[in-house]
Amino acid sequence: MADQKLLSTQQISEHKTPEDCWIVVDNQVWDVTDFLDEHPGGSTIILKYAGNDATKAYSEVHAPSVLRTNLDPDKFKGVLDESTIDADWAKPPPGENPRVVLENEKPPLHTLINSHDFEVVASKTANKKTWAFYSSAATDLITRDANKSCFDRIWFRPRVLRNVRSVDTRTKILGGDYKLPLFVSPAAMAKLIHPEGECAIARACESKGIMQGISNNSSYTMDELRTAAPSASFFFQLYVNRDREKSAALLRQCSANPNIKAIFVTVDAAWPGKREADERVKADESLSVPMSPSKAQNDKKGGGLGRVMAGFIDPGLTWEDLVWVRQHTHKPVCLKGVMSADDARLAMQAGLDGILLSNHGGRNLDTSPPSIITLLEIQRRCPEVFGAMEVYVDSGIRRGSDILKAVCLGATAVGMGRSMLFATNYGQEGIEHLVDIMQDELETAMRNTGVTTLDEASPDLVHTADIDHLVPDSRSHPYARAIAKSRGLSKL
Amino acid sequence: MADQKLLSTQQISEHKTPEDCWIVVDNQVWDVTDFLDEHPGGSTIILKYAGNDATKAYSEVHAPSVLRTNLDPDKFKGVLDESTIDADWAKPPPGENPRVVLENEKPPLHTLINSHDFEVVASKTANKKTWAFYSSAATDLITRDANKSCFDRIWFRPRVLRNVRSVDTRTKILGGDYKLPLFVSPAAMAKLIHPEGECAIARACESKGIMQGISNNSSYTMDELRTAAPSASFFFQLYVNRDREKSAALLRQCSANPNIKAIFVTVDAAWPGKREADERVKADESLSVPMSPSKAQNDKKGGGLGRVMAGFIDPGLTWEDLVWVRQHTHKPVCLKGVMSADDARLAMQAGLDGILLSNHGGRNLDTSPPSIITLLEIQRRCPEVFGAMEVYVDSGIRRGSDILKAVCLGATAVGMGRSMLFATNYGQEGIEHLVDIMQDELETAMRNTGVTTLDEASPDLVHTADIDHLVPDSRSHPYARAIAKSRGLSKL
Amino acid sequence: MADQKLLSTQQISEHKTPEDCWIVVDNQVWDVTDFLDEHPGGSTIILKYAGNDATKAYSEVHAPSVLRTNLDPDKFKGVLDESTIDADWAKPPPGENPRVVLENEKPPLHTLINSHDFEVVASKTANKKTWAFYSSAATDLITRDANKSCFDRIWFRPRVLRNVRSVDTRTKILGGDYKLPLFVSPAAMAKLIHPEGECAIARACESKGIMQGISNNSSYTMDELRTAAPSASFFFQLYVNRDREKSAALLRQCSANPNIKAIFVTVDAAWPGKREADERVKADESLSVPMSPSKAQNDKKGGGLGRVMAGFIDPGLTWEDLVWVRQHTHKPVCLKGVMSADDARLAMQAGLDGILLSNHGGRNLDTSPPSIITLLEIQRRCPEVFGAMEVYVDSGIRRGSDILKAVCLGATAVGMGRSMLFATNYGQEGIEHLVDIMQDELETAMRNTGVTTLDEASPDLVHTADIDHLVPDSRSHPYARAIAKSRGLSKL
Amino acid sequence: MADQKLLSTQQISEHKTPEDCWIVVDNQVWDVTDFLDEHPGGSTIILKYAGNDATKAYSEVHAPSVLRTNLDPDKFKGVLDESTIDADWAKPPPGENPRVVLENEKPPLHTLINSHDFEVVASKTANKKTWAFYSSAATDLITRDANKSCFDRIWFRPRVLRNVRSVDTRTKILGGDYKLPLFVSPAAMAKLIHPEGECAIARACESKGIMQGISNNSSYTMDELRTAAPSASFFFQLYVNRDREKSAALLRQCSANPNIKAIFVTVDAAWPGKREADERVKADESLSVPMSPSKAQNDKKGGGLGRVMAGFIDPGLTWEDLVWVRQHTHKPVCLKGVMSADDARLAMQAGLDGILLSNHGGRNLDTSPPSIITLLEIQRRCPEVFGAMEVYVDSGIRRGSDILKAVCLGATAVGMGRSMLFATNYGQEGIEHLVDIMQDELETAMRNTGVTTLDEASPDLVHTADIDHLVPDSRSHPYARAIAKSRGLSKL
Repeated sequence: MADQKLLSTQQISEHKTPEDCWIVVDNQVWDVTDFLDEHPGGSTIILKYAGNDATKAYSEVHAPSVLRTNLDPDKFKGVLDESTIDADWAKPPPGENPRVVLENEKPPLHTLINSHDFEVVASKTANKKTWAFYSSAATDLITRDANKSCFDRIWFRPRVLRNVRSVDTRTKILGGDYKLPLFVSPAAMAKLIHPEGECAIARACESKGIMQGISNNSSYTMDELRTAAPSASFFFQLYVNRDREKSAALLRQCSANPNIKAIFVTVDAAWPGKREADERVKADESLSVPMSPSKAQNDKKGGGLGRVMAGFIDPGLTWEDLVWVRQHTHKPVCLKGVMSADDARLAMQAGLDGILLSNHGGRNLDTSPPSIITLLEIQRRCPEVFGAMEVYVDSGIRRGSDILKAVCLGATAVGMGRSMLFATNYGQEGIEHLVDIMQDELETAMRNTGVTTLDEASPDLVHTADIDHLVPDSRSHPYARAIAKSRGLSKL
Repeated sequence: MADQKLLSTQQISEHKTPEDCWIVVDNQVWDVTDFLDEHPGGSTIILKYAGNDATKAYSEVHAPSVLRTNLDPDKFKGVLDESTIDADWAKPPPGENPRVVLENEKPPLHTLINSHDFEVVASKTANKKTWAFYSSAATDLITRDANKSCFDRIWFRPRVLRNVRSVDTRTKILGGDYKLPLFVSPAAMAKLIHPEGECAIARACESKGIMQGISNNSSYTMDELRTAAPSASFFFQLYVNRDREKSAALLRQCSANPNIKAIFVTVDAAWPGKREADERVKADESLSVPMSPSKAQNDKKGGGLGRVMAGFIDPGLTWEDLVWVRQHTHKPVCLKGVMSADDARLAMQAGLDGILLSNHGGRNLDTSPPSIITLLEIQRRCPEVFGAMEVYVDSGIRRGSDILKAVCLGATAVGMGRSMLFATNYGQEGIEHLVDIMQDELETAMRNTGVTTLDEASPDLVHTADIDHLVPDSRSHPYARAIAKSRGLSKL
Repeated sequence: MADQKLLSTQQISEHKTPEDCWIVVDNQVWDVTDFLDEHPGGSTIILKYAGNDATKAYSEVHAPSVLRTNLDPDKFKGVLDESTIDADWAKPPPGENPRVVLENEKPPLHTLINSHDFEVVASKTANKKTWAFYSSAATDLITRDANKSCFDRIWFRPRVLRNVRSVDTRTKILGGDYKLPLFVSPAAMAKLIHPEGECAIARACESKGIMQGISNNSSYTMDELRTAAPSASFFFQLYVNRDREKSAALLRQCSANPNIKAIFVTVDAAWPGKREADERVKADESLSVPMSPSKAQNDKKGGGLGRVMAGFIDPGLTWEDLVWVRQHTHKPVCLKGVMSADDARLAMQAGLDGILLSNHGGRNLDTSPPSIITLLEIQRRCPEVFGAMEVYVDSGIRRGSDILKAVCLGATAVGMGRSMLFATNYGQEGIEHLVDIMQDELETAMRNTGVTTLDEASPDLVHTADIDHLVPDSRSHPYARAIAKSRGLSKL
Repeated sequence: MADQKLLSTQQISEHKTPEDCWIVVDNQVWDVTDFLDEHPGGSTIILKYAGNDATKAYSEVHAPSVLRTNLDPDKFKGVLDESTIDADWAKPPPGENPRVVLENEKPPLHTLINSHDFEVVASKTANKKTWAFYSSAATDLITRDANKSCFDRIWFRPRVLRNVRSVDTRTKILGGDYKLPLFVSPAAMAKLIHPEGECAIARACESKGIMQGISNNSSYTMDELRTAAPSASFFFQLYVNRDREKSAALLRQCSANPNIKAIFVTVDAAWPGKREADERVKADESLSVPMSPSKAQNDKKGGGLGRVMAGFIDPGLTWEDLVWVRQHTHKPVCLKGVMSADDARLAMQAGLDGILLSNHGGRNLDTSPPSIITLLEIQRRCPEVFGAMEVYVDSGIRRGSDILKAVCLGATAVGMGRSMLFATNYGQEGIEHLVDIMQDELETAMRNTGVTTLDEASPDLVHTADIDHLVPDSRSHPYARAIAKSRGLSKL
């Protein structure tokens, strides 16, 4: 290393390719061409500094002596002539690009790392009408936003020093075995975002071992879905038709389809909500779905798909009709859309098999209560419901920790609707990736709260004091009695 | 279909008119000119892809075989030459424009779908002074904003599985029949935003079957309004003049006008509030109104129309004056502007026919309580008021769900002021459209909470816990006694 | 009016001066030159449309027939030739400019209509250092902002139908008569924003009949202020010097100055707070003030005027020193800066004449309690204080309604500091204008809550439930006892 | 001074250097060249106005006569010719530049005046990956942000008139003496931001007399740190390895290193959290640390350093393992990462020497409770813990007032992690400067609350009512019993 000849920055800059790569460290110039493939950290990081000064990056991870120890002396080329340093040389190499590029086109699937990413990508890449229909909610979006924020206001009470090496997220739903306490909530017209629509979802659920709810307004029929995913488990979400015979026919199909494990009768959509973003975008009037008589149309109220597609639903549905439902199927019957402890109790008394607490993702009645609040209301006012039937929750689930919170508070399983539609943007793979993410987040939350099976998930693991005041007590209103009495007078 | 000749994108692009329309689906080129009128989804959606590739839109709604089945074989023109695809071809067709274009000019009325839209349009198209006068409120706008947010913080407790096929929003106000528990709150000078001003409102109320409150500062006299809408129902909002004889004359006119169903004596405007946005814009000093002696003027405090137009109002009005009012009219007399349970009780004891809980839209005293809070205070402290007289609410109503909440909590009907002025921007039609929107929203909220008549609207349908702490208890302040006592000492 | 000749827009546009003014109404062209001076609404509004179309403005305020009725027929010049309408013509006349133009230069004083306006103007026109010194507060500004927001969270409980024709804001402070329950809080170095500094304030207070607190760091001496405003009433805010003799000299000056009505010993500044905005701007090191030995300087902590000017203050001041103060003056002695009920009680027991609840405008200890919270704490824990001495409040007062709230809750009077400094930007006139604004706002608030004298201002007029949880109870902390006990163990 | 000759602005402007400096005051032109060095306020302020009009700046601080009195008559050069004033002349001199310039390069250390400044500088100057790794936290960042905001919501109850001339922040930790109740929390890989990494921290802690926690993932070994700072005091943060022998070796090193005063076994990282910002930036795969077997890598979840570096940690660690730890060291053993009163009680029963309440800076489990909430929970539910062992707090400390609050509420000392890493950006000097800032802020808070030693810091000095509802009571959930019972039924 006698050769201490001065090398100008220009001279050094010429050796900047994988075939001829010099770098500078502590003002000493080294030829690292042959070393590129041996570098334990890979060649990329070195090439970033090819023909340039790597001192800063090098010293972050290496002791000063490493280069000298690992390279032949003849790889030493000389000493940087500092008088030749100019602005160009001093400029740092281009930084890493962020891995999620969210403009115009879908970024690679593996760069999406949570459910929010799927929503952001859909907002930028889905058809304008599709985005409006999927993302919209009733009027001022208060319930839609509270669905999420109420989960965020529940705190964990994590326990430490418990053996959480292996964690088990398996759960039983209506007697069936599933890999997660998570199902795909029924949501209409998945084909709008991907040609395979619900078929893609079905295949993903099959491969991941979770249940899929089929919307009455699915882009594909329940038989097509069974064909797509022969060993999948479904429940069918029924909108009862004003023409009962049409619904009876669907119930018969359900009975004949062994993959359908239960019927969920929708009760939170007596009347379609006013989803203003949906109304403001014109609908493609050729749009229809196979299992319902609805067709898209534009009218004086706007182009709301949610509204016109719900036109056939009977707003006259009552508890008595559930008897009629039972007459047309031998499968378990659950209610989708319970929003009060009072109705949960009635459902229990009516002998139903389960209830899905849901406000339709905030899409039907704004300022209807967040589902997690209804779960707390049931615990406060009629906890016996949990012993008599299964209770599910959807609306607002975005994180694995949300799943754990709901299960801690008494839910058997939770559903995700919108997020699954957004993941369908990537077809079957997208859903699978999202399910993997949710499983990973759930397992992380379980381990870091100190539990390894869902049986251990108890109310002791969470603290709900920040939202308890939003939970109705047994009496609706502190002055209910006084008001009722006075109103009575007023009517006399 | 033997002809599989290759067609370049340029060739296809030439057939892009309704008279000569080709589209590409799955690389096959079809002439759909004759099919345009037969398309069940309308021709617009097809023309969007005229001379272009429609595969994506097509496959969202059709099975692959549909084109082939529905078109004659000779409509098949060839196969897309994929080698000719360039950036222009790959570009998606122009998306739908959003239907509400809110710059500079009024968008078509039917594109406005809620009360907020009317406000946005007014903010952009009304005269600067008009906007300032209508939209402004007292000082820091705290009450104005709380009027709305307190409604948003009341949650529904929706019930399901109730027959809500038909819903009835009719209500009785002071013995009269109305189609909605909604009236137009009296608001001054509607002519500023539309030449027909209150006359337009009157005609709309007449056609929609709701009541209109006539402001003492109306741009048209009560007789002109009666002429405009001969079968309309009004109440007259009286500002009692320092010169009692002037007010007596107005009361006599009311008595003689059969369309006037009641007198509302304003009590929440003892002194004009400081509406700073209004003050900051110079007033047109030639402005005056027919039923009051006021005239616009600019002075050292600014150009506040609200302030100078209120100059004639007597700040010396007391409960004793109500006896005097009764002497000049045989019609029902109500108070407009009650802001406390204490005064509600006094009104009941004074034998009034009704009270309108109002803080003047937050325009007079900032941090005066939101009206819905006063409604709750009455329920907490003197619910007997509801049995003795009718209670109305205005200030902050923007949604049909707000109407339902107020009725659930004891209101006979509610008023909307500012929103109606903003709708007057479109004349009679604008008001009618807004009333239709409110009715639709109210009916949707009723159905989705499970009630079909307003009689069923009870406190059990709402949960007010998030705002209950804002409701004064029977004692004003936890330390009132201690303070009063100490102050007493201090004065000795 | 036989002459119906067509006039082009260009022809009409030429008549657009006060000497030759045509306008168009409903397509008819009128010469209104002679009418300009007779117009009841003034000429300005007409001239706005000189040589142009005034139809819209005209019809907002006039019946169609007014022009024809009031003008000579020969003033009718012809009919607008609509074919000549172009974009220029259709353009509306320039709107009114907003009256407050807040860039670079001070807008006319009368366009400032509230205390916030003075702050905005100061932020744009004051010297950078002056703004930093006046507006800054301790560290994260939490207390500074809470001072204001706690007032905003107190609601009124307004009463109606009370005779509020005349309202009286006069109050007694330490036996003296003042026109308002408002004084100027002592604040340092008013000369930074106006050459007349505290002299301007003194003259304004004299003319408006309110009291001024003189800061120990005033730009002018108490004698100079007396000279400037011979009949003004002052109190002197004392920072006790480490060198007691210096303070004794000041106390002797106070005793000799008949305009000084009381001594306020500062106790909320044991140590200067960390006002980061102030530190970040370099100080002019030639700056000093006459009644204190301090001088501005820049050091390694920054350029904080607040910090270096406080260098002489004795952090060793205790209750015993108050005896020493009493020995040097026969005037009333009050404490400035009490922040707890405990110290209020001690002050009462020490026989002081009054206490000013203050956290130094949030400038000394961040997260120290808002003064209005301390007022509530006194009421909760030792209301007897109000009977024994006067209680004042500053920090956060920005509105007349804030004054009323403080008085309702037991304050004798309130002080404003920063706002007064910002008003000094306009000299004496600025202060007078701000005092007028505050008086007007206070009277409006009194009238609209239904009171006419401050004696009637009682806790019954306000509702503090939204902030009551911030008020410490008699016990500091629910677990104080447990903690103290355990800590005791820990120390054994 | 007979010479009253007129001087134009252009003439004056030519004399604008230190060697030839004229200024204008009150239209009189003076040569102040010789006076520059004598000016008590320094020459800078004068030179700012060299060749220009200094009237405004002058009159802010000087009486009119000062110039005339201090300068020789021959320094008077003439009178400003006002007719020559143009826009250039009227322009004010350039203002002071703000002293913190935060773009691209590190501003001078002394211009950083609080912990937030260090964070801002790091965000702009650190390597992208370094910033992501240091600043990121688990999923939605709720815990990370609440860590800070909960401190902000604790109010002081300051006492006045106490002698706070001298203040003493010294404290005892595990029997050792330290100058502050503040230590450097163990945080991984400080070398990423500065080549000297933890060595720089060690030297700073040694010079400032505070304790340093050494991370198991430190860039330097504990022996290297001892060499760097021979008289420093450390504790060692142990991540227990799945391969116990590796951890045993580290424990033996600790025992042999006299500067290691205690072992902190980490229990809040059973599983690595999902730090999304960290995952999104690619890691340099050549990165490793000496005392752990981890290496950086990029995988399908992303490039999260936090995750992959934690791969060796044993999620099976339990209370039993603590016995094993005790067998390998005679030094005090504490737990790092207790998040509940239940585990605090267990730690006490297990005979540990201390517990560090920590949620890993919000990095592992989002919505885990802020540490200060856990401190309050211990006080509420098991205050005997404070008598039995030392309790420390980290996560969210940013201000000296935060330190005081924690100590008032029972903490022996607090740790800062991220802020110290950000300060390492400036090497040893940076850490020293930050410690000085924290000490100054702590002393200011102590003085302004009226205490002089940490022994006096008691719960009586703080008011926690704004966050008390977030503190879990002895029962986890109001309906825990009902839920548990019902779930039991559900499992039958």
